[in-house]
Amino acid sequence: MALDLPALNARLHAAAPLIQNITNTVVQQFSANVLLAVGAAPAMLDHEADAGQFARLANGILINFGTATNQQLLAADAAIRVANQMGKPWVLDPVSVGVIDFRTTRIQQAAECHPSVIRGNASEIAALAGQGAGGRGVDSTDEVDAVLVAAMSLAQSTGAVVAVSGARDAIVEVSDSTVRLARVGGGHPLMPRVIGTGCSLGSLTAAYLAAQRAPDGRRLASDFDATIAAHAHFKLAGEAAGKTTSGPGSFAVAFVDALYALQSADLARADVHLEIREMPDTCGL
Amino acid sequence: MALDLPALNARLHAAAPLIQNITNTVVQQFSANVLLAVGAAPAMLDHEADAGQFARLANGILINFGTATNQQLLAADAAIRVANQMGKPWVLDPVSVGVIDFRTTRIQQAAECHPSVIRGNASEIAALAGQGAGGRGVDSTDEVDAVLVAAMSLAQSTGAVVAVSGARDAIVEVSDSTVRLARVGGGHPLMPRVIGTGCSLGSLTAAYLAAQRAPDGRRLASDFDATIAAHAHFKLAGEAAGKTTSGPGSFAVAFVDALYALQSADLARADVHLEIREMPDTCGL
Amino acid sequence: MALDLPALNARLHAAAPLIQNITNTVVQQFSANVLLAVGAAPAMLDHEADAGQFARLANGILINFGTATNQQLLAADAAIRVANQMGKPWVLDPVSVGVIDFRTTRIQQAAECHPSVIRGNASEIAALAGQGAGGRGVDSTDEVDAVLVAAMSLAQSTGAVVAVSGARDAIVEVSDSTVRLARVGGGHPLMPRVIGTGCSLGSLTAAYLAAQRAPDGRRLASDFDATIAAHAHFKLAGEAAGKTTSGPGSFAVAFVDALYALQSADLARADVHLEIREMPDTCGL
Repeated sequence: MALDLPALNARLHAAAPLIQNITNTVVQQFSANVLLAVGAAPAMLDHEADAGQFARLANGILINFGTATNQQLLAADAAIRVANQMGKPWVLDPVSVGVIDFRTTRIQQAAECHPSVIRGNASEIAALAGQGAGGRGVDSTDEVDAVLVAAMSLAQSTGAVVAVSGARDAIVEVSDSTVRLARVGGGHPLMPRVIGTGCSLGSLTAAYLAAQRAPDGRRLASDFDATIAAHAHFKLAGEAAGKTTSGPGSFAVAFVDALYALQSADLARADVHLEIREMPDTCGL
Repeated sequence: MALDLPALNARLHAAAPLIQNITNTVVQQFSANVLLAVGAAPAMLDHEADAGQFARLANGILINFGTATNQQLLAADAAIRVANQMGKPWVLDPVSVGVIDFRTTRIQQAAECHPSVIRGNASEIAALAGQGAGGRGVDSTDEVDAVLVAAMSLAQSTGAVVAVSGARDAIVEVSDSTVRLARVGGGHPLMPRVIGTGCSLGSLTAAYLAAQRAPDGRRLASDFDATIAAHAHFKLAGEAAGKTTSGPGSFAVAFVDALYALQSADLARADVHLEIREMPDTCGL
Repeated sequence: MALDLPALNARLHAAAPLIQNITNTVVQQFSANVLLAVGAAPAMLDHEADAGQFARLANGILINFGTATNQQLLAADAAIRVANQMGKPWVLDPVSVGVIDFRTTRIQQAAECHPSVIRGNASEIAALAGQGAGGRGVDSTDEVDAVLVAAMSLAQSTGAVVAVSGARDAIVEVSDSTVRLARVGGGHPLMPRVIGTGCSLGSLTAAYLAAQRAPDGRRLASDFDATIAAHAHFKLAGEAAGKTTSGPGSFAVAFVDALYALQSADLARADVHLEIREMPDTCGL
């Protein structure tokens, strides 16, 4: 089945999925606006008494412990449990994993609970794979190329699609000893100068995942393809925004406009490169 | 007393009321900027030890449980108690009522505590009136026209002015068996594509309510008229913003500019239709 | 050592300091974007199990109790403790001090814990100095000139640099009985119409402080000079933004662009006036 990005985007517009975002308070507004721009419906709820019940209604879930409180951690547990029981797609953003112990433990636990996708920057993916010390928080101190093997190892151990954001995003899926790798180029250097461009990509990925499931649960596209589509959509919007702006304030505004303006056919222009590899031997002995 | 929207707006500018917003973290920034744009002063405090004492200073209060934590719920209780003791106006935004049990219970309790205004979308108003299943969270799955009787019933049972946001807003007041109904048109289809346009209208309504009370407590205009003015102000700003923008990112920016630029005289141009009806028989037997 | 604002700014760009912001949820996004615009790295964490450990990595810390929860208060305690143990610069924003008892107590405790800088509006500085009743929350009801002696008294009692934001900012340092006072003009009347312009200045100040410490801990400039530079940078950006916009929505966008666009040499144009005074006799008897 060839990768058909326009079809994946068309399903997103048709499905208008409801995405539950248990995410950090810094990026809630931006993430909600990103979802609304592409026609999805955002919801944020941080109370453990609400989150599990709401997850039954949601079409996809994004978990990001950036500013997690005890209540939000319980809310995430409840939502993940429901997602797994009902087979709903969910995305884990391991922000700041490896930097601080408490958070790292909680993120590692979540990573073992069958996320559909794990999306982070290079430092976070390396740290979660046990092969790096983590970044400084939201920014990455590693490059995508340097963590490709770590991403493959994480994909293999968790069963998740692993997405590494950077100058050229990498999306990895491992099945037995076969690695499918996609690289997505484009974007703009101002993107990391706008808070939430990473975190909201996790929300968008959850929306693309959700839109590829028919109401009867049948998969219309794989999680791997849906994740590529989300990253391609983001990169194209970043490129478009960079053409008309020269500072991060106006870039952020133009970026939301560009996410909204992109038509399904536009996704055919995305800079996506696919390859298949053998799983490398990651034995350290 | 005829509805004099320019006078209601002039009082808002003159009073610069202090509005306490116990609201969800997704829309705090946008709601604060909406209030600042119209000359009001926003304050957000979510600690139960602060909220009651601050409510004594505030001129109006907005309560929205969108991302409520246990502490914020206690803060809301404290603020509502003070508002009622001191006769201060307060607005309830019943976001996501009817969707999840815990939240629904808390919102129903608040609705019984004499809010001046209840403002929500059609799904929320129907659910709070006991006549619908709620929406999917922040977006509405019902139309305003379909919930007019529910809004009247809710206004009668709570004593509050009830405002339903939609393509053509409805504002309802019931006194004995007489219904006053206002419909407010205008706005722009991009408004629901910007997070917080609904929630911040609740904050603006609280500001209009507060501005119509003289320092000695005397009412210079009714809560019904103040609520209409807030909705008319919003619709006019949405219309203006839609004329110069074509995406939700730039629309949000232009909308705040338009709220700021609107002069009192401009409100005379608002598309407001008033009518008086008999309270319909809502007996279900 | 003469005040060399371009050199102070160049060090900020070179250092790209990591700033931990324990701040209110209303301004987290804006504060993060302000820091990113000037090349610093923002981090927000509100869990007490994370905050102390993260403070060991951070180059500077900003504390603002605007929407503090019990967990955030514990997180602040942990971060301040580490900052003091390790000699890291930290900034206290005493938002709403003097308005409500619980918050006032917590802010007074923090002020005694050796902040490098205390930055607030005139009402807040007066209240923290014990010479005023506080404002109404985020907006100031006092003028900068009226609270200069209070700022000096606070600087003397705490040992901190004290910065008062207003039409003409005042920055005060007291050593023995000598007062160094800087006044910084510029800015634009729309600045107080955008939420977070005050709070994010505290974050920027922390970034400037951090950037003036060499890796070996040596001071490359004083905290007084760094605080002036942050305020000058802000005022210049406000001036620039005001030239191209006429409403608070577009002003906020242009302001972030201007923070990003400002080059080190531009800071030589800042309107800064320095003077030295004797400490006035503040004995009330």
